[in-house]
Amino acid sequence: MTKKPFPLSKVYTLIEPGPVVMVTTAWKGWPNIMTLSWSTMIDFDPPLLGCVVGDQSYTFHILKKTGECVINIPTMELARKAVACGQVSGRTVDKFTTFRLTSVRASRVKAPMIGECYVSLECKVIDQRMATRYNFFILKVVRAWVDPGKKNPCTIHHLGKGIFRMGGKTIKLSSKIK
Amino acid sequence: MTKKPFPLSKVYTLIEPGPVVMVTTAWKGWPNIMTLSWSTMIDFDPPLLGCVVGDQSYTFHILKKTGECVINIPTMELARKAVACGQVSGRTVDKFTTFRLTSVRASRVKAPMIGECYVSLECKVIDQRMATRYNFFILKVVRAWVDPGKKNPCTIHHLGKGIFRMGGKTIKLSSKIK
Repeated sequence: MTKKPFPLSKVYTLIEPGPVVMVTTAWKGWPNIMTLSWSTMIDFDPPLLGCVVGDQSYTFHILKKTGECVINIPTMELARKAVACGQVSGRTVDKFTTFRLTSVRASRVKAPMIGECYVSLECKVIDQRMATRYNFFILKVVRAWVDPGKKNPCTIHHLGKGIFRMGGKTIKLSSKIK
Repeated sequence: MTKKPFPLSKVYTLIEPGPVVMVTTAWKGWPNIMTLSWSTMIDFDPPLLGCVVGDQSYTFHILKKTGECVINIPTMELARKAVACGQVSGRTVDKFTTFRLTSVRASRVKAPMIGECYVSLECKVIDQRMATRYNFFILKVVRAWVDPGKKNPCTIHHLGKGIFRMGGKTIKLSSKIK
């Protein structure tokens, strides 16, 4: 076999994650933004998402208290702002103002949407039993918003150490899959 | 705002998942393969992975019984075989033989590795409390194998309806992130 043993501490660099998302929350009227990389779809309909939110983050605590957020998906044009949002804490910084992002009122949750992101998914936390042990929240998407003018959006995917992969070409391999 | 409401049943097409992985298991000496798209890293070290395994699949039942599997990551060259493995059941088909894949003995689990995949992660199920409700298993990687000759591997990512995205260019945006 051509494969060799690989250090366990670097396994995370082998699994390209889903798109970088910017999670917005609100606490007592104050909005916040967190950038995260580790999430997955859990079910189709109603759409469920699972995401890992570090327990040291301000967002972790707001999510536990309010049970609400918006998952906003940025494209390449917003990459630097998305990264910058992930490097300061909302405890001390108003990220919408600091990074010149537009707060847009959502319809089903108090957390705002980010105007510049081409997708915003209004979400309710439906299960936080995995939050204490794994920082893992299960969210139900209750309303979805998409910019229909955005064709072939170039999302960004964090490979580790600040290196991001952009979307490549697509290929059709089957018509039997959902 | 330029965003419009979007049907909840199609939200899954908005979130490009991590790489297609081929999950191998073994039951009473018989190996099986399942292809899946929805997974995420959960923690760095020890490396934890979460994955969604449909409860109608043979793999779901073997995973619950044995608590072991290997997560194998294929590249583009294996895409058609990976898709084909996802379209038949291991209850009736020996997929290693049918799809001419090489079974390689793992070191820490009874499930075999797929020789043709450039990454194989030997895993133990450490939490299946979410399996009944969400088909979600938490795996701990106990040994990792990588083909060191595989530079810039082109993994494939299922966008829905049989359309797959391949990896694109990379960009470095920060050196402050793990």
